[in-house]
Amino acid sequence: MPLSPTDIEALGARAEQMVNALGTISAEPDRLVRLFLTPEHRRAADRVADWMRAAGLVVSEDALGTVRGRLTGTGPKRLLIGSHIDSVIDAGKYDGPFGVIAGILAAEHFSRSGRKLSFGLDVLAFGDEEGSRFPTTLASSSACAGAFRGETLALADRDGVTLGAAITAYGKSVEDIPAAAYAPGEAAAYVEVHIEQGPVLEVRKEPLGVVTAIIGQTYLNVAFAGEAGHAGTVPMALRRDALAGASEAVLLGESLARATQGEVVATVGRITVAPGATNVIPAQVVAIFDIRAADEAARARLAGELRDGIHAIAQRRHLGVTITSTREVATTPCHPLVQDQLAAAIRRVGGEGLRLGSGAGHDGQAMAKLCPIGMLFVRCRGGISHNPLEYADPRDLGLAVAALIEFIERFDPEKLG
Amino acid sequence: MPLSPTDIEALGARAEQMVNALGTISAEPDRLVRLFLTPEHRRAADRVADWMRAAGLVVSEDALGTVRGRLTGTGPKRLLIGSHIDSVIDAGKYDGPFGVIAGILAAEHFSRSGRKLSFGLDVLAFGDEEGSRFPTTLASSSACAGAFRGETLALADRDGVTLGAAITAYGKSVEDIPAAAYAPGEAAAYVEVHIEQGPVLEVRKEPLGVVTAIIGQTYLNVAFAGEAGHAGTVPMALRRDALAGASEAVLLGESLARATQGEVVATVGRITVAPGATNVIPAQVVAIFDIRAADEAARARLAGELRDGIHAIAQRRHLGVTITSTREVATTPCHPLVQDQLAAAIRRVGGEGLRLGSGAGHDGQAMAKLCPIGMLFVRCRGGISHNPLEYADPRDLGLAVAALIEFIERFDPEKLG
Repeated sequence: MPLSPTDIEALGARAEQMVNALGTISAEPDRLVRLFLTPEHRRAADRVADWMRAAGLVVSEDALGTVRGRLTGTGPKRLLIGSHIDSVIDAGKYDGPFGVIAGILAAEHFSRSGRKLSFGLDVLAFGDEEGSRFPTTLASSSACAGAFRGETLALADRDGVTLGAAITAYGKSVEDIPAAAYAPGEAAAYVEVHIEQGPVLEVRKEPLGVVTAIIGQTYLNVAFAGEAGHAGTVPMALRRDALAGASEAVLLGESLARATQGEVVATVGRITVAPGATNVIPAQVVAIFDIRAADEAARARLAGELRDGIHAIAQRRHLGVTITSTREVATTPCHPLVQDQLAAAIRRVGGEGLRLGSGAGHDGQAMAKLCPIGMLFVRCRGGISHNPLEYADPRDLGLAVAALIEFIERFDPEKLG
Repeated sequence: MPLSPTDIEALGARAEQMVNALGTISAEPDRLVRLFLTPEHRRAADRVADWMRAAGLVVSEDALGTVRGRLTGTGPKRLLIGSHIDSVIDAGKYDGPFGVIAGILAAEHFSRSGRKLSFGLDVLAFGDEEGSRFPTTLASSSACAGAFRGETLALADRDGVTLGAAITAYGKSVEDIPAAAYAPGEAAAYVEVHIEQGPVLEVRKEPLGVVTAIIGQTYLNVAFAGEAGHAGTVPMALRRDALAGASEAVLLGESLARATQGEVVATVGRITVAPGATNVIPAQVVAIFDIRAADEAARARLAGELRDGIHAIAQRRHLGVTITSTREVATTPCHPLVQDQLAAAIRRVGGEGLRLGSGAGHDGQAMAKLCPIGMLFVRCRGGISHNPLEYADPRDLGLAVAALIEFIERFDPEKLG
């Protein structure tokens, strides 16, 4: 029985209501801040668990705090549908939560029908996709994928709390991390619904799109070392100002990325200056470059040019410099058959089934180590995300849930063998 | 009875020992951090008070925590000798403390002689010269000069503690601030000994110099407003990156100052980026420009060019920008007669009496509102200050104390009328 336009509208309205409800759960009254393993994460996880139970799912939580809502099928395989409920600092409401909510609403559709699917459905709410608290990311989806890296437990947040200690403080045990992993062959596929976070669907006037790949990412941690000195007495010509060097590097990163005409993007979102007093010439500056491109060679080429350019800046300015690659994520392709099935589902609800790359990272990068993955993108206004202005039309949200239901309806684990 | 070379050497050794002793009093084990009205300020003030008492001075403390060691003279006028015992973050040991120590050692010389001077001697240890804790500076010397600005009591440090609350927590009362002021006509002059914090004396191979003026200062608080967005999905061409704009501004300030060939210096020592996540395009960046020049017109010209240039950067990049002048300090000339007397004293201990400007701010800027001021500079290695590498030769310290003693010996309050 296909979904009627009225059903789709109702799904969109419910989805928007749930997105708004989760959007009120924040560490700060005036902006959305919901970091991994914090009291806000706890409150959001409890809300999600309540929704899952109301949708007829059996709820559990693993050692990383991932909430799992399970619907049993007739066969042993499971289709995993997930996204994350952590946020960046001063975030929008849709990035992450809508994917979890879409999974819950779709699962509820089948749970209420009374008819058992030939496979189980697991809806997953991860807590560490943004990497806004610890200098690591995808810890929770990596644990589900059986690819959790134990050494990340020692990484500390800005207050010096390690990931390991935060897990304990959240009431979990690091000894239970291996148990979070799915058994090999248990997971047939992982599918995620997410706002696009870019302008392509809006420009193409399409509410939904199929992701071809999650583009790769290089993080360069660039530490300039100059010499502190009095801001009033050291002549300009004798200075070794680490911030002036870093400023050149920021602009170099920008101009190199601009020159690729859209192939590569480069961003410095965080910079720290020491000693950090207004009347002291900066001695130490650390800038973190986030470089992304679908094409591995293009990304590596820009990173290389940036490294060379930064070394030249440092040499000319008599600064020390250390460049460390702190993250190197290869481009993750989405499974061709899952792409095709998602495109068919989109066409069934009236869309074109447009294919596009994902410029943002997603939990699918970790889940791809476990099973085939696919992603369905939803149009968002102005391509804006990681920003309180983030917005998606409730009609588009309803179409996304409907397409996900159509996808699940026809999903066959055996075809992915 | 003139000081012998042996006396001078002994004074230098004692001064160095006392500088090292104060240098151990810090909020942190591995670097020198001694901020206004903190437990470290308390400990340093107690040490200074002990030294003053041992030197035969009568010790008191005012509402801002300024320690005063008093030696009575036969006449009603007083010669004030002072400097500060607060520090920047990760400071050197000499900047401030040596001036207080030089005053104590010189006062001790006269106290031990048994012969009364025709004027009183007050040695002052101020606590707020660096402005490293509150967004204000010279609060303690302003109180002595009767020029304390009551509105600064509401200014808060990074933890939200106001200056008023910090005064109370230090065991003082804001109601006693007016009583810290010298009576009009009571202070004949204010003299300060300080390391140069610049390279001039070293280059000229002179241990001591006479300051002609404390150069003026302009602080421009520059706030860029761009748009936050996802670092992986917003095309370079559509970005409004506040940090890229600020980076251009930092480099513009540097190049404008370089072009003045030494007349003006400009520094950005502190920059804040919001939201401050590695994967979010910066939306808000605040950079504080510290601009200094002896020539008022040259300083105003550079500030004007910088403002115009920053507005052009913001316009080109479609960024909002707000530029606020948060500090505007006029150049403070040293009194010509005090300059001459200091130069004569330097010649008496074997120096040339070289004149030079002070690129750094000093308590004399506040004290000039009370009485004529003068400053004696001491050579420091590499011109380095606001840095743990700060160093002055103990022989130079001894010569400075000896010159100060020679200056006091011949000081006549009536000549300054």
